[in-house]
Amino acid sequence: MNQTSAIGRLLKPSSVAVIGASVDATKTAGRPIAYLQKHGYLGSIYPVNPKADEIAGLKAYPDIASLPETPDVGLVLVGVDRAHMAVRDLAARGCPAAIVLASGYGETGEAGQARQKELREAAGDMRILGPNTIGMVNVTDGIPLSPTGALAMSHFTVGGISLVAQSGGIMGSLLSHAVARRIGVSKLISTGNEVDLDLSDLIDWMADDPDTTVITLYVEAIRNAAKFRAAALKAARAGKPIVAFKVGRSEAGSRAVVSHTGALAGADRSYEALFAQSGVIRATSFSSLLDIPVGLASGRRLAGNRIAILTSTGGVAALVSDSLGLGGLSLPAPDTDTARKLRALQTGDSAVLDRNPIDVTLAGLEPKLLTGAINAILESPTFDAVVVIVGSSSLAKPDLMANTIRGCLPGSAKPVLAYVSPYAPEITALLGASGVPAFTTPENVAAVLAGMLKAATWREPSVARVPAANADIPSFGAGVLDEQQSKQLFAAFGIAVAPEIVVTNGAQAEQAAHDLGGKVALKVLSEKIAHKSEAGGVALNLMEGDIATRLMRMMQEVATRTLVTPERFLVQQMVSGGQEMILGLKRDSLGVVILLGAGGVTAEVMGDTSVRMLVDGSGLSRDEALAMIRELKSWALLDGYRGRPKADVEALADAVVAFSAIAARLGERIAEAEINPLFVLDAGKGVVAADGLVVLR
Amino acid sequence: MNQTSAIGRLLKPSSVAVIGASVDATKTAGRPIAYLQKHGYLGSIYPVNPKADEIAGLKAYPDIASLPETPDVGLVLVGVDRAHMAVRDLAARGCPAAIVLASGYGETGEAGQARQKELREAAGDMRILGPNTIGMVNVTDGIPLSPTGALAMSHFTVGGISLVAQSGGIMGSLLSHAVARRIGVSKLISTGNEVDLDLSDLIDWMADDPDTTVITLYVEAIRNAAKFRAAALKAARAGKPIVAFKVGRSEAGSRAVVSHTGALAGADRSYEALFAQSGVIRATSFSSLLDIPVGLASGRRLAGNRIAILTSTGGVAALVSDSLGLGGLSLPAPDTDTARKLRALQTGDSAVLDRNPIDVTLAGLEPKLLTGAINAILESPTFDAVVVIVGSSSLAKPDLMANTIRGCLPGSAKPVLAYVSPYAPEITALLGASGVPAFTTPENVAAVLAGMLKAATWREPSVARVPAANADIPSFGAGVLDEQQSKQLFAAFGIAVAPEIVVTNGAQAEQAAHDLGGKVALKVLSEKIAHKSEAGGVALNLMEGDIATRLMRMMQEVATRTLVTPERFLVQQMVSGGQEMILGLKRDSLGVVILLGAGGVTAEVMGDTSVRMLVDGSGLSRDEALAMIRELKSWALLDGYRGRPKADVEALADAVVAFSAIAARLGERIAEAEINPLFVLDAGKGVVAADGLVVLR
Repeated sequence: MNQTSAIGRLLKPSSVAVIGASVDATKTAGRPIAYLQKHGYLGSIYPVNPKADEIAGLKAYPDIASLPETPDVGLVLVGVDRAHMAVRDLAARGCPAAIVLASGYGETGEAGQARQKELREAAGDMRILGPNTIGMVNVTDGIPLSPTGALAMSHFTVGGISLVAQSGGIMGSLLSHAVARRIGVSKLISTGNEVDLDLSDLIDWMADDPDTTVITLYVEAIRNAAKFRAAALKAARAGKPIVAFKVGRSEAGSRAVVSHTGALAGADRSYEALFAQSGVIRATSFSSLLDIPVGLASGRRLAGNRIAILTSTGGVAALVSDSLGLGGLSLPAPDTDTARKLRALQTGDSAVLDRNPIDVTLAGLEPKLLTGAINAILESPTFDAVVVIVGSSSLAKPDLMANTIRGCLPGSAKPVLAYVSPYAPEITALLGASGVPAFTTPENVAAVLAGMLKAATWREPSVARVPAANADIPSFGAGVLDEQQSKQLFAAFGIAVAPEIVVTNGAQAEQAAHDLGGKVALKVLSEKIAHKSEAGGVALNLMEGDIATRLMRMMQEVATRTLVTPERFLVQQMVSGGQEMILGLKRDSLGVVILLGAGGVTAEVMGDTSVRMLVDGSGLSRDEALAMIRELKSWALLDGYRGRPKADVEALADAVVAFSAIAARLGERIAEAEINPLFVLDAGKGVVAADGLVVLR
Repeated sequence: MNQTSAIGRLLKPSSVAVIGASVDATKTAGRPIAYLQKHGYLGSIYPVNPKADEIAGLKAYPDIASLPETPDVGLVLVGVDRAHMAVRDLAARGCPAAIVLASGYGETGEAGQARQKELREAAGDMRILGPNTIGMVNVTDGIPLSPTGALAMSHFTVGGISLVAQSGGIMGSLLSHAVARRIGVSKLISTGNEVDLDLSDLIDWMADDPDTTVITLYVEAIRNAAKFRAAALKAARAGKPIVAFKVGRSEAGSRAVVSHTGALAGADRSYEALFAQSGVIRATSFSSLLDIPVGLASGRRLAGNRIAILTSTGGVAALVSDSLGLGGLSLPAPDTDTARKLRALQTGDSAVLDRNPIDVTLAGLEPKLLTGAINAILESPTFDAVVVIVGSSSLAKPDLMANTIRGCLPGSAKPVLAYVSPYAPEITALLGASGVPAFTTPENVAAVLAGMLKAATWREPSVARVPAANADIPSFGAGVLDEQQSKQLFAAFGIAVAPEIVVTNGAQAEQAAHDLGGKVALKVLSEKIAHKSEAGGVALNLMEGDIATRLMRMMQEVATRTLVTPERFLVQQMVSGGQEMILGLKRDSLGVVILLGAGGVTAEVMGDTSVRMLVDGSGLSRDEALAMIRELKSWALLDGYRGRPKADVEALADAVVAFSAIAARLGERIAEAEINPLFVLDAGKGVVAADGLVVLR
């Protein structure tokens, strides 16, 4: 049996065995069957409980072996002490998939990890959702396999939003909010400890699921970044945007995540980069994790950032305008033609029709006038979308407002959103059901529009062509490379390094300075001394005549400070001018992190760095390298700040690509690398690596 | 009559005249009387309408003159064309206050501004709320003077939260949300265009109002910052925290604010500083503008930032932990004693009791166990507050959960908050009504705790002693001071400036360089040349022997570039070492902005600056100056970054105080000033102003 089909049978089973089902429908182990019946499941349900003959009117079986057929899925409700046995029996029966609710596994420490391993082994080829999961709810097909209290609610709305959550509590919470707001959902799945099926498996499946149009993720930790990225790109190619909320952003949150599922959250900036590189829209507030998908599920495309706000109440429109402005959206004034059309509606003297927000006043809420105003905006080449403000004046006639706005949808493909200002859950839900995504916080209106814009404009990064290195990449053993070796490696990949000569004494240093010409730097060269400056092992701007004496002094100083008597020194041509940058590489739980920043203290103290993840063995494309450079605040300094000459950004991009190619080529062998400083000279003059470090393993 | 009493009669009138009342209760002009009756107003209502004999069962009067008594307040519902006449008649009658709803005034441009002036003049000594306001609602005393649709709701909850909003639509929105969530409120007032009564008048009044415990502000623009600060400090001294949300943060928002009330929003950083200096807690999301007051209105004091999270569901607790961590709160593990008490409760094997979040599992929700756990946390010296996570398991028995948590309140003064994870408005409201502030977004839990901590720990800044300047402050006329004059002014206030000599030719320059000793800078000195560097008028690191030639070249270069032949030059001792800073001062709509930042390009490109407002003619205190320095990211560079020597922070603080004293002393005369760069030397060596500019008016 192929694995995709196993997931399909897990999510759309035609038969379900419920192992450990309780006769008490109020207990956790009694609820799943009650919910299956409540939500009208049409397949076969087989309760397995040796102590009962009948549960909820269904024949109960003493064990899995005695089931009349092999179920499509086994829902395992027994505790951690017996779950692995149920799983083994289900696997023996040829069941394609099991859901294991029990906790007490990886999240509890070493003993739990061993139990988790045992569970995995018991499953064999059978797929497992969990353990420590609350199961899944397939709303489209009316199949709940979960004890979540949210299933006690009624009136579920079927729609295109599917959810994968690494926490069962969060899945339940989001389901209850979706039901209350009448948001249309398809599948909600809690993956828990992910002993087998993980976020990425389900994204991959949903990319092919005709009932899913938007994928929503609640992420605690991604265990395999390459797999995640591949699944996300598959969804993007299928035209299904992904919206993700990530916890573990703070240290307290990271600790809480570890104690929840035993997963390490990793650095937030790495996730930020991974999401951006995979086309995943990040929800930065928890409530926007539902709102952004609601906007996307409308299926309308936001082609640009120019938004019109249509209102009958100026103060509320100002609030929304302010949020949109903060969110990077633009609110241009209506063009002459549109203003003329709006004026022709004659909504009264105090209407504001030549600015944005466009205020039609209370008079303009008359359906014919409102229709005219919305249509004028949607027809205007000036606007990419319209946000209609629903004030308290609309509360008296919610249907009228919703129907009027809905009536304008067919005439245009541009997004039409609503912001509902007073407390009015009915009109909010009604608008949503009418195809007009409606929101109740100004911040989320901005987040939704930004998300829609990103979904419409994101392009998959071009595949990196890993530049050919010189035929003879130097081969070094594991450990810390010294400065000269590190630079040899950089140079082999085409990154220019400052001319330098290795010397062992003053006379050689003098000759080297003479040969290099001009001012030189003198640096101690020893893999035993990691921090040259602090060891007294760096002297800058030396002349030929000074260097021999300086070398003697450095030798003594370094020996005093580090107890290592240095034997070799580097004489290096001074780099003059240019912008100092830092280019680094390290590993974290997601993969290799490439970091670019302004050099000196700027990157550290100001935190002005840009980051990309390498997760699948390829390097960065040139486009990505250029994007990294332009993301920096320091970009201004490279781009001819205040009349300075422009820096050689092209050469810097080449260097970033080459640096990432080192990681791609050396793969698992490279642990860490840094070029600091990397001087970016004036345009056309290239870059020069003046110092660096590589750690191999 | 004193003005305070006029505001008192406006907000608690014993009689109300409604000018322009309509017989149709569904119309805007018909609603206020309907709402007064609906909410059980006990005072006299006098409809004024020449076309009606009776309105809503009340005798109607043809005009204000024929009213049987002078009303405490006139609610003016007539349009912009007649409102000033109604106001004039009310004033003539001796009415203490009027509310003017009409729009079409300052927000519409010049003609409207003239009408607004006319309205003000018509009022004479009578106080006016508005125009362009939706009025006010006094929930405590059951007095609504407004047509806002929110008043159609029922079951208003009386409490200590009062609101002043500069937008009527927003007032209505917040009222409707408060009513729906059963949040206890006292007075809600919309100030509109503030032709007379403004935010500050109402804050001042509420500081004395026994029914108000927390003041909430929705701010578009503050028209008088000194008055605002005085009122805010009065409220702070009365122990009434103020929470403010400010729009006009983005350019689009600023434009929208102007078209709403005609007010200029000003720079957001200036507001940020004014709020911070006035003890005002800023709500950064719109929904937190209600949630933070809800937390504060509990009256419980948060003494520190150490929060315990108590949960029965790990995933949701991780989400809240993460938000609290991002919000600067700390989640320490329980101390040994507390962990022992928690273990003694025996909530089951999978409970997590030695970490935070503290997970008592579903078993721990049994009331006795939950009470024991909450009490153990509240008794612990490790925690300043507890957040209880309410999961979907509590939905079945909302009363039980609310009563159990409420039962723990009397034993401790520490804050007890709840986060409600599933959609469950009943339990959220029930908890709130039980004295347990309950929230539904993790971000707002963090915002509430941060707000409560700020309210408990904020101290009024010490009053600045304006340092005595030299007896002979140089007296300059209006205009741009040149570098030398500017430095004279700085020096007169005790800021050390680099030694310098004014010269007119090469020979003098050579002598000056000789006298100053060491390396010198040569700068063109002319009030006609604002940008010396760009004019070619700055040369650094010159020696005595080079300076004459360099002066000649500079003279030609500057003449070529600016068409001004420079006649004077400054020869200045070079400052060696030290950290470059910038110290600036300018005016905006709120007052004088003092700005400190790291010099060079850091302040500009990285935006690393700290800001304070001078609004009441006094300068900055030394504590404030030190706080400004420590807020900078660049603070690390001053504080001995990576083994560098520490900079003279004391001297820098003195310079900031002295700089602010210049503004305090020169008052309205100073338009702009800047010291750039200001070198901060190593500790004990002081600061040196190396260049600067002052603009007087």
